[in-house]
Amino acid sequence: MNQTDRIGRVLSPVVTPFNDKLEPDAGRLANHCRWLLANDVGLAVFGTNSEANSLSTGEKIGLLGALVDAGLPPERMMPGTGCCALPDSVELTRAAVGFGCMGVLMLPPFYYKNVSDDGLYRNYAEIIERVGDDRLRIYLYHIPPVAQVPVSLTLIERLLKDYPGIVAGIKDSSGDWNNTRAMLEQFQPHGFDVFAGSETFLLDTVRHGGAGCISATANVNPAAIADLARTWRDEGADEKQAALNAVRGAFEGYVMIPGLKAAIAHFGGDEDWIRVRPPLVSLTPAQRQQLIAGLEDKGFDMPGLQGA
Amino acid sequence: MNQTDRIGRVLSPVVTPFNDKLEPDAGRLANHCRWLLANDVGLAVFGTNSEANSLSTGEKIGLLGALVDAGLPPERMMPGTGCCALPDSVELTRAAVGFGCMGVLMLPPFYYKNVSDDGLYRNYAEIIERVGDDRLRIYLYHIPPVAQVPVSLTLIERLLKDYPGIVAGIKDSSGDWNNTRAMLEQFQPHGFDVFAGSETFLLDTVRHGGAGCISATANVNPAAIADLARTWRDEGADEKQAALNAVRGAFEGYVMIPGLKAAIAHFGGDEDWIRVRPPLVSLTPAQRQQLIAGLEDKGFDMPGLQGA
Repeated sequence: MNQTDRIGRVLSPVVTPFNDKLEPDAGRLANHCRWLLANDVGLAVFGTNSEANSLSTGEKIGLLGALVDAGLPPERMMPGTGCCALPDSVELTRAAVGFGCMGVLMLPPFYYKNVSDDGLYRNYAEIIERVGDDRLRIYLYHIPPVAQVPVSLTLIERLLKDYPGIVAGIKDSSGDWNNTRAMLEQFQPHGFDVFAGSETFLLDTVRHGGAGCISATANVNPAAIADLARTWRDEGADEKQAALNAVRGAFEGYVMIPGLKAAIAHFGGDEDWIRVRPPLVSLTPAQRQQLIAGLEDKGFDMPGLQGA
Repeated sequence: MNQTDRIGRVLSPVVTPFNDKLEPDAGRLANHCRWLLANDVGLAVFGTNSEANSLSTGEKIGLLGALVDAGLPPERMMPGTGCCALPDSVELTRAAVGFGCMGVLMLPPFYYKNVSDDGLYRNYAEIIERVGDDRLRIYLYHIPPVAQVPVSLTLIERLLKDYPGIVAGIKDSSGDWNNTRAMLEQFQPHGFDVFAGSETFLLDTVRHGGAGCISATANVNPAAIADLARTWRDEGADEKQAALNAVRGAFEGYVMIPGLKAAIAHFGGDEDWIRVRPPLVSLTPAQRQQLIAGLEDKGFDMPGLQGA
């Protein structure tokens, strides 16, 4: 059984709830994680859509411990652990491995721009060497629209050569299918698992041998996404993909993170979910109403969700 | 005496030395700070050129304490304290105020892109409220080429209105003189100190009523930059500006941070200075030789510098 078979083909960058002091709310996070798992979606906590970079390293380690203490299975977790500062990345990655997390999703350090592949290689290599644990499985995180620091094909090649097994895959959030396809062709055959960065590319990705997807909207539409990931070889797959795209389309025109939280607040009946940390802002009441109306028009629901 | 008169017109984002384990070297940092002060340059520790975002919050607080313990004057310090995560920005800013630092230089949270001015306002407002100390003086940090998250004129206007006195100025590293001039015209008359992000704009900035500059190359050429900031009304100022530009020009074509460290290593006779943290890489031996030759051709020196 390879890594992907263990963790599943669909993961969600789990949104992070905050209390009225804007502190992370571990109880609500655990509940949301349970609902995702019940819908066959794995836990990419501390992703972009988790506001991970708005959390301190200490907060992230605290939340991870709270999830494990709450009985959530670390073998279904792929926490984001790539920070700007090497010691933060090392500390968080070491904690994730210590908790038994299946893998970690690792951004490149993203403050300095136009850095060399040598510098990025050195970042990943230092983390791997300092963590120094054979259980470590790194999924690289390529998200140039946000990080503005890409993970190039040549960097992947070099890391895979020097750290086979440990460098286990990638999430490609470039939105550029040509790039995803190049990764699928060059690296997936060597056991390097390529996850699309959104379910929009799920069917294309698995048809080209890829692992699946790690997608923001898996926070709200997990069952249908996971279903397509299981049944993509069957008839009707293209129709299922079109249905996924329609739900995702309802979130277009809104900032994704407050949009996801507005949907969870509404369908889970828990107003506390709407909070975001700065620099994000919640949707306005009018935006929320419009978003929910658009979702309900499509017959969308989040069955079984209990927000609080 | 206003803030700028106290801290001086020229500050350096002090480069951070690392030991052979890539840990920050507080002793060498203190020595470099002493040399800068002896050349009339203030200490903008934890700036972009300090590799501040490659340091953890704990490392930064530790270094700040070590500098104060080593007798360096906090009233000449403007540490960078703006992080992606609100609790990090609050913790670091609170520490800086506690140590008696004259001000702090504050990046916006820089992971999420295309965020609203409302979200950025909320970030700064939350920090100010949570730190809750009248001694706090915030210098905003506008560096769109790196942070990719701008500090707009409308954001400044709103912050200045709601937090007069606390919002004390800005470093404009846009490299766009029209933007600097707009800030000088709109905000400097209200006691909001505009610092150019490089000495290239020093003379233009002070001639338009600005405070001075906070510049990478003040790490290596402090005396001449501080001299122009003092004597800009005198004859010969344009020639002095041209001479500053020539020295800065010698660093063009090299990545700035390893370039500065290579100069300090050479002119201070201390090879340990060349280290950088990932994702940066040191200059190659050939690059170092070429950089130093270019500087020596201009008769450049760093008198009084002792690296170790």
